[in-house]
Amino acid sequence: MRATDIIIKKRDKQELTPEEIRFFIKGYTDGSIADYQVAAWAMAVLLNGMNAAETTELTLAMAQSGETLDLSGVVDLALDKHSTGGVGDKTTLVVEPVLAACGCRVGKMSGRGLGFSGGTLDKMESIPGYRTDLSREEFLQQLKDVGLVLTGQTGDLAPADGKLYALRDVSGTVDSPALIAASIMSKKIAAGAQRIVLDVKVGLGAFMTNLQDARALAEMMVAIGAQAGRKTVALLSDMNQPLGHAVGNALEVKEALDTLRGGGPADFREHALDVAAHLLVLAGVESDLPAARQRAAVSLADGSALERFRTLVAAQGGDASYVDDPDKLPGAALIEEVPAPRSGYLQTIHAREVGESAVELGAGRAQKGDPIDHSVGFVIHHKVGDQVQAGQPLFSVHAGDAAKLAAAKARVLAAHHWSDAPVEPLPLFYGTIE
Amino acid sequence: MRATDIIIKKRDKQELTPEEIRFFIKGYTDGSIADYQVAAWAMAVLLNGMNAAETTELTLAMAQSGETLDLSGVVDLALDKHSTGGVGDKTTLVVEPVLAACGCRVGKMSGRGLGFSGGTLDKMESIPGYRTDLSREEFLQQLKDVGLVLTGQTGDLAPADGKLYALRDVSGTVDSPALIAASIMSKKIAAGAQRIVLDVKVGLGAFMTNLQDARALAEMMVAIGAQAGRKTVALLSDMNQPLGHAVGNALEVKEALDTLRGGGPADFREHALDVAAHLLVLAGVESDLPAARQRAAVSLADGSALERFRTLVAAQGGDASYVDDPDKLPGAALIEEVPAPRSGYLQTIHAREVGESAVELGAGRAQKGDPIDHSVGFVIHHKVGDQVQAGQPLFSVHAGDAAKLAAAKARVLAAHHWSDAPVEPLPLFYGTIE
Repeated sequence: MRATDIIIKKRDKQELTPEEIRFFIKGYTDGSIADYQVAAWAMAVLLNGMNAAETTELTLAMAQSGETLDLSGVVDLALDKHSTGGVGDKTTLVVEPVLAACGCRVGKMSGRGLGFSGGTLDKMESIPGYRTDLSREEFLQQLKDVGLVLTGQTGDLAPADGKLYALRDVSGTVDSPALIAASIMSKKIAAGAQRIVLDVKVGLGAFMTNLQDARALAEMMVAIGAQAGRKTVALLSDMNQPLGHAVGNALEVKEALDTLRGGGPADFREHALDVAAHLLVLAGVESDLPAARQRAAVSLADGSALERFRTLVAAQGGDASYVDDPDKLPGAALIEEVPAPRSGYLQTIHAREVGESAVELGAGRAQKGDPIDHSVGFVIHHKVGDQVQAGQPLFSVHAGDAAKLAAAKARVLAAHHWSDAPVEPLPLFYGTIE
Repeated sequence: MRATDIIIKKRDKQELTPEEIRFFIKGYTDGSIADYQVAAWAMAVLLNGMNAAETTELTLAMAQSGETLDLSGVVDLALDKHSTGGVGDKTTLVVEPVLAACGCRVGKMSGRGLGFSGGTLDKMESIPGYRTDLSREEFLQQLKDVGLVLTGQTGDLAPADGKLYALRDVSGTVDSPALIAASIMSKKIAAGAQRIVLDVKVGLGAFMTNLQDARALAEMMVAIGAQAGRKTVALLSDMNQPLGHAVGNALEVKEALDTLRGGGPADFREHALDVAAHLLVLAGVESDLPAARQRAAVSLADGSALERFRTLVAAQGGDASYVDDPDKLPGAALIEEVPAPRSGYLQTIHAREVGESAVELGAGRAQKGDPIDHSVGFVIHHKVGDQVQAGQPLFSVHAGDAAKLAAAKARVLAAHHWSDAPVEPLPLFYGTIE
């Protein structure tokens, strides 16, 4: 078998066999197939596509390209969730403690933000001392002892995906549904997930701006999960406007803590409860969504989810006093409350603009490895459809210096689009695929 | 400007600007754009195509990526020919001395064989002492003094093409008309050619087996030549059966010498005269093809072309006595005359099979740099359409050992396909594009 023949086969729109896909991914992992061959192949895959059988095989080959985690001795059923990335998406910070409060053991590996999209690890690191670099042994021990883990990737999981992801980024081959689906699912499978909820974001502040593309990606991932024996449900959720109000690391932790205390923005609370409910049903904790949702809501109301979050923070070396006194979290040097420049109905709050402006403030990274400022960001007070009077608070900017504050204020003001006529609110979800 | 954006633009079927193409080729040449980026781009070009303006710009960018040769002080009009490769194609060995005999100074850089296709340098090296590695200075001096040069590439001409060609070979991106056209034309332009005849081979023994593809390639190259100010004519010539009778290095030199003496196979002679006539017209030596053809034929009849060939061999260190006594050329250990196994009309003489069998005998290379045996090959006595009686000589095998001889005999016997009914001879040409 020769790498070039496999490239040519895909170039000529033929279906690759499982053996060919395995050979290709194994060769890429061990270095016998070169980056330039994989880049040409990835372009052929992007332009000519892959069917469900090929994509599943690719996913499994990548999942098995390095270490894998088997949680069967530690948890009854390994649950996982994945968000495709958005602005203000602090869902994991609420969903994981809720699941734990409802009796599930959950060990989750999360990522960092890149570009306009935030990352769970960055948010958690707003809490002094919180470690996101647990070893495999620490991960397993904490999952057994505490029942809740939230850390970065442990060990060499799916190294082929890591290599391919970095290569796609510099070879114009990111936007392939098959390659995106295989990347996401291979990491989940390598990490041992048996039941998966995918939060597929769609809209101005998501990587997929088009519902049709997002649905196709979601269907592909659900099919891969089914064929790989990992039952998967995908939620198509709105990412045209920021989720909740807060955008920025410490600000989002505060909002998550509000929600864990039974408050928080209505849209974010509803979103988190929906994600949690699907996971509780997949876990077999409840047999239907209304009951699961009710159980999740109780865990917010009775403080049990907050208690699990506090335990998590302490277990991973964080200062648990921040959980009870969120005002201790890093605060920005300058905070300005920006009033509405006019009266009217909010037609658009362009999530990507808000996310990119937060990056400019220092909340995110232009390049991997850049330092970030946990204190900066925005609180966006309104939602699309809200009627706002001129002079009412529209959003607050939390910035490190006056120049950045001014730039962010201008950009986020421009990200608010107005209408004189009433505007329908945006839905939270566009559908469920299972 | 970023390489990734240029890749994405071509991926998304957009036209690249001249600046983008220049930036990309410059970056590839200086190493700032990586192989994997160029491989992904090449796949996008192969699948999405390039228009004439893009292909011309690519050609010029590659032609100007290193040294270029300016022959304007040495020759009136720099002529060049290029064959896209075939079996038994010793055209250059006759055409160049003919042009010289007709008063043109011609300095040509040729290549080696690869795969089933032979190469002019390998053929010339059948003559002991003949040097194919002239320096740039030797090339120019000999062109001035002798008026005829036939050597390998001198200097670092079109290095971007060299890099891209090697990359395409291992990334499944060879079969792109735009990339093939740019590769051929960039080398010709870098070598200073002002008037070019392209011998575009089509058929079973060519890289293009389909007339439509060959015509599209030829049209693209003629358009590039016109836009680059290098008037170019392309001949679409048959390569279903071997050209002439001889296949194999020394055997082909003998056949070329026969032709230079006024003999030789009719098809090869006609082919060479046609190519030479087009070049003589382009050079302005004659104003129309019949006159040019007549003049070329005279140079064969009166021995003047042979004399130029003898001078060429001597100038490049070869033993000129071989020109007058071709039987001194390397002969194979074993020669077997194979009789026709049946009577009938020859329907096909599969040129690629003959070429690959010659490679197996040692006349060509499986890999670049492999040693070759100049003595081995075939003399194919007949042409498609010939009526042959059982027992008449069909072809001779010239081999180094009995095992190889037996294998070659069987393969070339099988490459002759028969018909009971009369078969039309194959045309020499399918058209001219200018």
